[in-house]
Amino acid sequence: MSPNCPGSGFVRCIEIEKPVLGNNTADAQRLEQALKKELGNEAGSGVKIPWCLLKTLPSFLRAWDHKARAVLFKDCQSWRLVDLLPPNLMEPEQTEPEQTEPDQTEPDQTEPDQTEPDQIKLKQTKSDPIEPVQPRPVLGAAMDIGTTRIVIMLLDLESGRALGEIGFDNPQAVIGPDVLARIHHSHKPGGGDQLQGLVVDGVNSNLARLCRENNCDTKDIYLVTGAGNTAMTHLFLGIEAFEIIREPYIPCTNIPDTLKAKEVGLDIHDKGLLFLFPNIGSYFGGDLIAGILFADLDKSSEPCLMVDVGTNAEIVVGSRDWLIACAGAAGPALEGGVSKMGMTAGPGVIDRVTIDPSSQRVDVHTIEEKKPVGICGSGMIDLAAALFLSGMIDIRGKFIKEVCNNLLVDINDIPSFVLVDKADSGTGRDIVLSQVDLNSLTSSKAAMYTILEVIVKNTSGLEFEDLERFYVAGTFGSFINPVSAISIGMLPDIDRSRFKVLGNSSLGGAALLLRDPLAFDRIMEIRQSITYIELNVNQEFMNMFSGAKFYPHTDRARFPSVPINSA
Amino acid sequence: MSPNCPGSGFVRCIEIEKPVLGNNTADAQRLEQALKKELGNEAGSGVKIPWCLLKTLPSFLRAWDHKARAVLFKDCQSWRLVDLLPPNLMEPEQTEPEQTEPDQTEPDQTEPDQTEPDQIKLKQTKSDPIEPVQPRPVLGAAMDIGTTRIVIMLLDLESGRALGEIGFDNPQAVIGPDVLARIHHSHKPGGGDQLQGLVVDGVNSNLARLCRENNCDTKDIYLVTGAGNTAMTHLFLGIEAFEIIREPYIPCTNIPDTLKAKEVGLDIHDKGLLFLFPNIGSYFGGDLIAGILFADLDKSSEPCLMVDVGTNAEIVVGSRDWLIACAGAAGPALEGGVSKMGMTAGPGVIDRVTIDPSSQRVDVHTIEEKKPVGICGSGMIDLAAALFLSGMIDIRGKFIKEVCNNLLVDINDIPSFVLVDKADSGTGRDIVLSQVDLNSLTSSKAAMYTILEVIVKNTSGLEFEDLERFYVAGTFGSFINPVSAISIGMLPDIDRSRFKVLGNSSLGGAALLLRDPLAFDRIMEIRQSITYIELNVNQEFMNMFSGAKFYPHTDRARFPSVPINSA
Repeated sequence: MSPNCPGSGFVRCIEIEKPVLGNNTADAQRLEQALKKELGNEAGSGVKIPWCLLKTLPSFLRAWDHKARAVLFKDCQSWRLVDLLPPNLMEPEQTEPEQTEPDQTEPDQTEPDQTEPDQIKLKQTKSDPIEPVQPRPVLGAAMDIGTTRIVIMLLDLESGRALGEIGFDNPQAVIGPDVLARIHHSHKPGGGDQLQGLVVDGVNSNLARLCRENNCDTKDIYLVTGAGNTAMTHLFLGIEAFEIIREPYIPCTNIPDTLKAKEVGLDIHDKGLLFLFPNIGSYFGGDLIAGILFADLDKSSEPCLMVDVGTNAEIVVGSRDWLIACAGAAGPALEGGVSKMGMTAGPGVIDRVTIDPSSQRVDVHTIEEKKPVGICGSGMIDLAAALFLSGMIDIRGKFIKEVCNNLLVDINDIPSFVLVDKADSGTGRDIVLSQVDLNSLTSSKAAMYTILEVIVKNTSGLEFEDLERFYVAGTFGSFINPVSAISIGMLPDIDRSRFKVLGNSSLGGAALLLRDPLAFDRIMEIRQSITYIELNVNQEFMNMFSGAKFYPHTDRARFPSVPINSA
Repeated sequence: MSPNCPGSGFVRCIEIEKPVLGNNTADAQRLEQALKKELGNEAGSGVKIPWCLLKTLPSFLRAWDHKARAVLFKDCQSWRLVDLLPPNLMEPEQTEPEQTEPDQTEPDQTEPDQTEPDQIKLKQTKSDPIEPVQPRPVLGAAMDIGTTRIVIMLLDLESGRALGEIGFDNPQAVIGPDVLARIHHSHKPGGGDQLQGLVVDGVNSNLARLCRENNCDTKDIYLVTGAGNTAMTHLFLGIEAFEIIREPYIPCTNIPDTLKAKEVGLDIHDKGLLFLFPNIGSYFGGDLIAGILFADLDKSSEPCLMVDVGTNAEIVVGSRDWLIACAGAAGPALEGGVSKMGMTAGPGVIDRVTIDPSSQRVDVHTIEEKKPVGICGSGMIDLAAALFLSGMIDIRGKFIKEVCNNLLVDINDIPSFVLVDKADSGTGRDIVLSQVDLNSLTSSKAAMYTILEVIVKNTSGLEFEDLERFYVAGTFGSFINPVSAISIGMLPDIDRSRFKVLGNSSLGGAALLLRDPLAFDRIMEIRQSITYIELNVNQEFMNMFSGAKFYPHTDRARFPSVPINSA
């Protein structure tokens, strides 16, 4: 087997049965038979061959001695042939015919019409030595279409190997930083097209850059997959998104069709396809489904949990037998909560904090080890844990002036903890955490724990100990130190080894779909099988929430591993 | 039920379930549910909704109070939604929203983003009285794509009613009169595109004229179906046709996909679709399948036969249980035979001939009753029958000088029968049938009978008497007088009532596909179930052929109803 044709994935080497008298099956149908044979049990209802490939199919098949590499995609409906490429030249005997002169084989001698024979060039391919041509790569691109940031991974579709990645701010931010502002803009005349243009142009220029950096060509990209929340997916496709934010919160579509990339404006191979992950509702997007896929939640024999701590807290718990999801605004508890816990990660942003309990010496780590300019969510969780464990805040999350000593100052009458002195900061000002910031964090961590408790215990009927894996997804989640998060009672006190940071699971899922043709059906099954529950912020929730607002919790027995602090 | 929504066919009136809190199914998926419900058992694997319809789906559904007319097509793979139109305005309460201002319903009061509110027009649709709008018609066009002539029928897709027909010479004739010349031309650089452009431009201009004549607009045409022989179908689609005429005679495709009409260059509705009938091989085209469909051969409980006497003699015999077809060049017997039997029908062409045996008075009928200019195939069959029955030719088909008297003259030493004296002709010259012409007709009629005998008796194991119906299709076939054809031994001597002239069965089948969604599956089943046999011109065939070259046959017992002539 050729190294470029691993016999799985979306690039397959095929050999088509040659036509003979007595079997008058057409070229396209013999090609389909060869593809079905190659796909075996996966073939399903067949392979759709697009009209544009038919135009030159007969001369290509004959010039390639009825061998070819097929670029495929598995659709909702069936397999689709995306393009047909010359076979890999293991021996220098096949080449791609020139498109303008398809008649490279000698015409049959019985042809009666020989008008203008000078216009028909006769070539002998069989005997002429032909220079082997370096086959072009067959590439794919996976996208995480975040509201804030977009990340693209370039892959070799034949080997499945990742070639490179590029990240950039979602260019729609010029319209508005959040989903709401953009959807409102999309509702104005021309607004939807403008938003679509912004994101598609951004993807095109970054794809071009990514390809340049990897010495390849965007025209060799045949498949693009993408996962994003429901609103970003709608805006990417230029379909009406307004009803997403208006009661009863209905997306235009749950399952975007596979599209011609060109139609949407993506500047890849002319025959290239685009597929964006389906959603389950306005508040449960394709990014979550991509995460479930990437975490193999739908394959696990034991229950697992995945939490995506991003703009919203989105949680899925389940196994191969069942999946329960909970997502969306968690009411006042999360409003301006988790999402506003800190600044976005970037150079100079504090992402790790330790405090020596005896010396009260504060150590911070910044991204790219630049001078500190602020603190991000994971840094705040670290800081809150350190403050709690060193006894500088009480179980209600209030600063203890007597313990904090000179690290606590009053700014506008609000007690504020000086994390970095202005002498050491990159802004020229003290970097502080005020009691207001800390209260916000306390609400957020309490909301997170309560939501986890509701979905695991109340809804699924499990205990946290029953969870075999606890996946933390999302960019923010990637940086969280589980020990710190447990110490402040944000995450449940289970064995640390069960926590697994997934990283960009949305991108991971989109890339998986490019590597594994079986992933498509899994996506559709995940979508079908998930039970989506609205988080019901009722009296019981508020009672649970109140207990979770303590450090780590009013019920200390839930956090046996967290040391009792000295406060 | 609305008269415009008969509840079958490709236009359906639907009502979509309105969204509520607690059911967050997206608009597209609720639309699909409504379509599936409307289609019932026919729905199959679902209905594909194109991306272009999603763009404005949410605001249209709401403006139309979740009612709509759906234009559909049934594909190889599944149903496809072609377009969604406003519901029929039985009461003046719905209208189509203006595309540039989709926000015609009052935005939710909870919307936080009110930037640039002056750009958002608020309208009260529910209470405003709206003028009823005359709904636009939903049209379809069926094509018979003949090598020589193209005929288009315009239909109302809602009622299934034919609105008009137009016929015109295939504009590809400027390249060459026959299939061979055109396929050779298509093989030259740019030749295929040129041929496709010719036929598509011709269809466009004639569609425009047909629409003008019927006071409608080509932009209201949503579906175009077409049936033609395999070569014409390939050239229409611009796909390589060269292998059709080169051993082993392989089409590029047996089953053309449903295409966007715009992609092929057809100037109809932007979202319109084109479907051309599939073929069974290079010599058994979609026109024949359309004929089988039109004749309901695949539904008949008793065996029937259909013969299309066109450029080739193409024959299908069978019933709902089995179908056997035989088509293509019948070797030397038919070479230049049936196809060259006369001139093409047109004004002044003799299509019917009678000879009074006693007075030898020849009466001719011409098309449009113009002065005679020549004779077409059906006229020649009539003439041969009349000559034979009046004893003017012998059983070998040779003129009997003594009987013909002064009607027989020698032209270049060849005995020729003067059918019309130059004084009465439209050409200023005698219109004659020479012995050479007659010999050619004799060969042709013998070939036809032999092929019929082979396929009915030798291949199907039937007798002619077992045929419940004997369909004669094709333009040429439409004019044949079965009594004359039997008299000369061209068609078998069965009860005259069993003969049925189908007319343009290719056009009829293409039109049927626009009227009946069940037709698509029948087409695919016909294609699958047909046994296609190559006519084997061996010694046995030649023996049978020799017997059939007599008038009506060496075996007179086969033609008991034909009077014994006086020769």
